[in-house]
Amino acid sequence: MLRVGYPATIAAELFAGFPEEVELIALSEHLDHDVEIDVWIPDPYPTRAQRIAPRLRGVRLVLSLMAGTEWIPGAMGPHVTICNAHGAHNIATAEWTLAAILAALKYFPLFLDVQRSGVWKRRFEASAHYAAISGDSRPHYPPVMQEELTGKNVLLVGYGSIGKEIERFLFPYNVNLLRIARLARTEPLVHAVSELERLLPLAEVVILILPLTEESRGLIGSKQLGLMRQGTLLVNAARGPVVQTDALVEALNAGKIRAALDVTDPEPLPAGHALWSCPNLLLTPHVGGSSPQFAPRAIKTAADELRRYMAGEPLRNVVQTAI
Amino acid sequence: MLRVGYPATIAAELFAGFPEEVELIALSEHLDHDVEIDVWIPDPYPTRAQRIAPRLRGVRLVLSLMAGTEWIPGAMGPHVTICNAHGAHNIATAEWTLAAILAALKYFPLFLDVQRSGVWKRRFEASAHYAAISGDSRPHYPPVMQEELTGKNVLLVGYGSIGKEIERFLFPYNVNLLRIARLARTEPLVHAVSELERLLPLAEVVILILPLTEESRGLIGSKQLGLMRQGTLLVNAARGPVVQTDALVEALNAGKIRAALDVTDPEPLPAGHALWSCPNLLLTPHVGGSSPQFAPRAIKTAADELRRYMAGEPLRNVVQTAI
Repeated sequence: MLRVGYPATIAAELFAGFPEEVELIALSEHLDHDVEIDVWIPDPYPTRAQRIAPRLRGVRLVLSLMAGTEWIPGAMGPHVTICNAHGAHNIATAEWTLAAILAALKYFPLFLDVQRSGVWKRRFEASAHYAAISGDSRPHYPPVMQEELTGKNVLLVGYGSIGKEIERFLFPYNVNLLRIARLARTEPLVHAVSELERLLPLAEVVILILPLTEESRGLIGSKQLGLMRQGTLLVNAARGPVVQTDALVEALNAGKIRAALDVTDPEPLPAGHALWSCPNLLLTPHVGGSSPQFAPRAIKTAADELRRYMAGEPLRNVVQTAI
Repeated sequence: MLRVGYPATIAAELFAGFPEEVELIALSEHLDHDVEIDVWIPDPYPTRAQRIAPRLRGVRLVLSLMAGTEWIPGAMGPHVTICNAHGAHNIATAEWTLAAILAALKYFPLFLDVQRSGVWKRRFEASAHYAAISGDSRPHYPPVMQEELTGKNVLLVGYGSIGKEIERFLFPYNVNLLRIARLARTEPLVHAVSELERLLPLAEVVILILPLTEESRGLIGSKQLGLMRQGTLLVNAARGPVVQTDALVEALNAGKIRAALDVTDPEPLPAGHALWSCPNLLLTPHVGGSSPQFAPRAIKTAADELRRYMAGEPLRNVVQTAI
């Protein structure tokens, strides 16, 4: 009988849809002896999962509940097949992306500050904010209090399943969408990442939603930030190290760009880090995928993959094939 | 030659698209003598517009740049035709509505507080917030950090042009949309406002986007708030007096519902008002329509209406016909 280890932190009832022919074994994050299992579902928090990885024996298949699996090959070696929970994060992450873009363009951080102060008239600070960030100092009447997403030039860097989901949520805004992925393709038109520097100056919103790889690490540095327009909104829904943090802090502090981040480098961001207090920044502490719907959706994806594995069918979400 | 008075607060160049056969007259908000005009474009701020209304002679047509025109009949009497800038607010107001819904469901007010504190670990307050507002106290792992709009039951109260625009922006979220307007109709199904109390208990998000009339004044009071589910998000993108403020303050302070408001009653909200410090409230100071695109769009709508008026064609956006 196939032995499937899963994190004891997740309620057993969520695995009710797993095949009856497997033995489900709850693994404590404090596991202090070796355990023989065939399939491992790691804890969604890598630090917890990595703690018990050395105790696992016989693992042939890892079914991650997350989209990002960059820590697993190092922890488990090349002799296991690794699948991710392709798609399980899509909706929540794409919704976070839209929420972050709109909150930034509607100046919600500023208005929450106005709300806290309890002074209605402070609303006019929004006009000064618009002039400063856009560089548009013409008089506007009625005063500009927020911006529209509709019609903006949006550069989507990464065109996997979450990128496509973000495109779907962007549809009603009639944006001019430019797409970048590792390899160029057509229908729809996707540019190769080598064209990034040519396209950056066109964008008013830049969305990062690509996997962290050796190629994407540090992709956005001071040169790339320097190519962006005054007031461009940089959104990172991918992984922190895709952006060079020092360069980002500098561009934000200079008032050149604005940003919305759900991920940082380092992560967690330590107390006192310069990024916490940058202007024109909306920073959420890696919460983009964490909805009530996430765990059931990811576990169903893992169950489907396990069923294919047991039936000898091709797996769908392989990120590493065992050698 | 037709004399058209417009507010001197608006840059003259924005009226470049007006018919050449009219005389454009800039009206100071401090106008201290009577002026003879045929057509009046009032200042978008009603208090400024109302100040000069008694000085205007001969006005036959009022072309408002706003959607809400409730103050104009009282100021100008029944012998003028009044048109609004139907559509000019649609995009910005619908975008604000989506931004407000998503910011509330993604707990951005809480995360901005975390950001300000500079303590990454405070992210777990989001899980406690979810449990308190939803009433769902089951253990969740990974912890719930925010909610999804996708699949929620949304009640749209008001189905004019802005309501329809909001529906267009809601489309990618696959919500279960219930519509209410003054009169029932089909294709799509719209319920009569008399069904409000039957539908309220079904909704997880209630969006108010109906005009302020004698029927809609005070539409949402303690009875209606009491019919809502625990944690329902009430969004007011219409006019403040559609909601009874005392009842709203009570429901918010009781932790029964949450709200996102761009309008209040009274407005401006005075310093020290109880609403400023209610929990689970996102309050923006009537900024929903105020984008850089608004004035050009509204003035184009007015120019088109003026051209029809001069050609003797039927007007499109009449809210009062002269008697």
